[in-house]
Amino acid sequence: MYFYAVIELAIIGTGKVARALLHGLRHSGQVRVVQVVGRDPVALSTVKEEVPVALPEAIIASADMYLIAVSDDVIPSVSEWVKSPDKLVVHTSGAVPIDALAARHRKGVCYPLQSFSEGRNPDLREVPFFLEAEHKRDLPLLHALANSLSDTVQELDSATRQHLHLAAVFANNFTNHLYTLSYELMRKSGLSPGLLRPLIHETAQKIGEMDPFDAQTGPARRGDKGSMEQHLRLLEKESFKTIYSLLSNSILETYGKKL
Amino acid sequence: MYFYAVIELAIIGTGKVARALLHGLRHSGQVRVVQVVGRDPVALSTVKEEVPVALPEAIIASADMYLIAVSDDVIPSVSEWVKSPDKLVVHTSGAVPIDALAARHRKGVCYPLQSFSEGRNPDLREVPFFLEAEHKRDLPLLHALANSLSDTVQELDSATRQHLHLAAVFANNFTNHLYTLSYELMRKSGLSPGLLRPLIHETAQKIGEMDPFDAQTGPARRGDKGSMEQHLRLLEKESFKTIYSLLSNSILETYGKKL
Repeated sequence: MYFYAVIELAIIGTGKVARALLHGLRHSGQVRVVQVVGRDPVALSTVKEEVPVALPEAIIASADMYLIAVSDDVIPSVSEWVKSPDKLVVHTSGAVPIDALAARHRKGVCYPLQSFSEGRNPDLREVPFFLEAEHKRDLPLLHALANSLSDTVQELDSATRQHLHLAAVFANNFTNHLYTLSYELMRKSGLSPGLLRPLIHETAQKIGEMDPFDAQTGPARRGDKGSMEQHLRLLEKESFKTIYSLLSNSILETYGKKL
Repeated sequence: MYFYAVIELAIIGTGKVARALLHGLRHSGQVRVVQVVGRDPVALSTVKEEVPVALPEAIIASADMYLIAVSDDVIPSVSEWVKSPDKLVVHTSGAVPIDALAARHRKGVCYPLQSFSEGRNPDLREVPFFLEAEHKRDLPLLHALANSLSDTVQELDSATRQHLHLAAVFANNFTNHLYTLSYELMRKSGLSPGLLRPLIHETAQKIGEMDPFDAQTGPARRGDKGSMEQHLRLLEKESFKTIYSLLSNSILETYGKKL
């Protein structure tokens, strides 16, 4: 016979990250979500899982952990909702340092490295989670939470997490913007932008098998000056020309090509 | 009883595109590859499918179509390998106009919009193929070839194909380079770059369901000046700062945000 500790968790927030984490914990035997807290009654009413919801005033006092999944800029003020001192309060942001949480709490971070969108439920077990605790004694609880969600969990301090988040801006925000620019170029030429999808998917899938450094192709990789000049002539908008030149030059430099 | 015409095809080239097309045609009842032609005996000896190989001097005279899959810059000279006049000679490049092929041939283009790498066989049936023919009467043969390979086939003139290829540079070459930069940032912080893979895959998968314009997230999308300034401070290399600023500004402009 043995005793199995169940972590009672309050989730603060009703946005995309909060919903994804709630969804990821729905079958967990280790973590029980005892409350979802938010200030918007309409948003609370649309929480799909069967779990008690509450406005900030009615926040539960007895949870083992409070997980804050809200916009970066309101993390400090939202962490004040937990009135009792010495509670384990954890935020989920890549960019915000651990000490942004209210001073009276035992502070922690549980950052999932993923881009969450309405209506999509990426497999959390494949999403890397990064943990930080103000007090070492809180790490086991953070690990138990993260392991309930994911197969890839590691500890990371606030400074390194900010570098990780910055790398993610390049890998996610900026690549997605390049998709947007390529879609605009397609539409301008009367082509369906969806035709690019297999290419975009394959480009991303490929790095599962090879380093992107080795997967690079294209005129700049070959140092093909003629093609690059022709592309610049085809581009109408000045902003597109600037981005084309800058990224081509960056590729040329990366592979030690001189024009 | 009916007669079924089989197209006898010679493939010229032994590189990644040539091998992918050869592989894609291996079960075709409509197209029979009668020869693979190349100038490098070693490369010819590694052709995996069971098909006769030949040096340029021994090129078959009786093929219904000659499909050239070689580097852009040698398409004109390689098209001279086909000595007989009035043959249907087709190249596979997105950037090269149809009239780069030798004047004595009936010219055509069959461009697969995909990035091919050694050792990967992307599902060609999902790859869009773009066709062009100098003579209308050759279009049925080009369609028969492309339909043997893919479910998405459309006609496209040389000028529009160049715009398509340019959009693909943004969607593939430039995004892959951003992966490379993000990998470098990860390594510099002592983090395994593979941790970014689920994020990169999800970013690409997402555009199967939503327009990238709507999927955009991040500091620039939110107009979050503080985060952007902090990121610029974290970046050491001048070239990374320049790319960060330019792409962030492009996002700000795209969504009508002013700092």
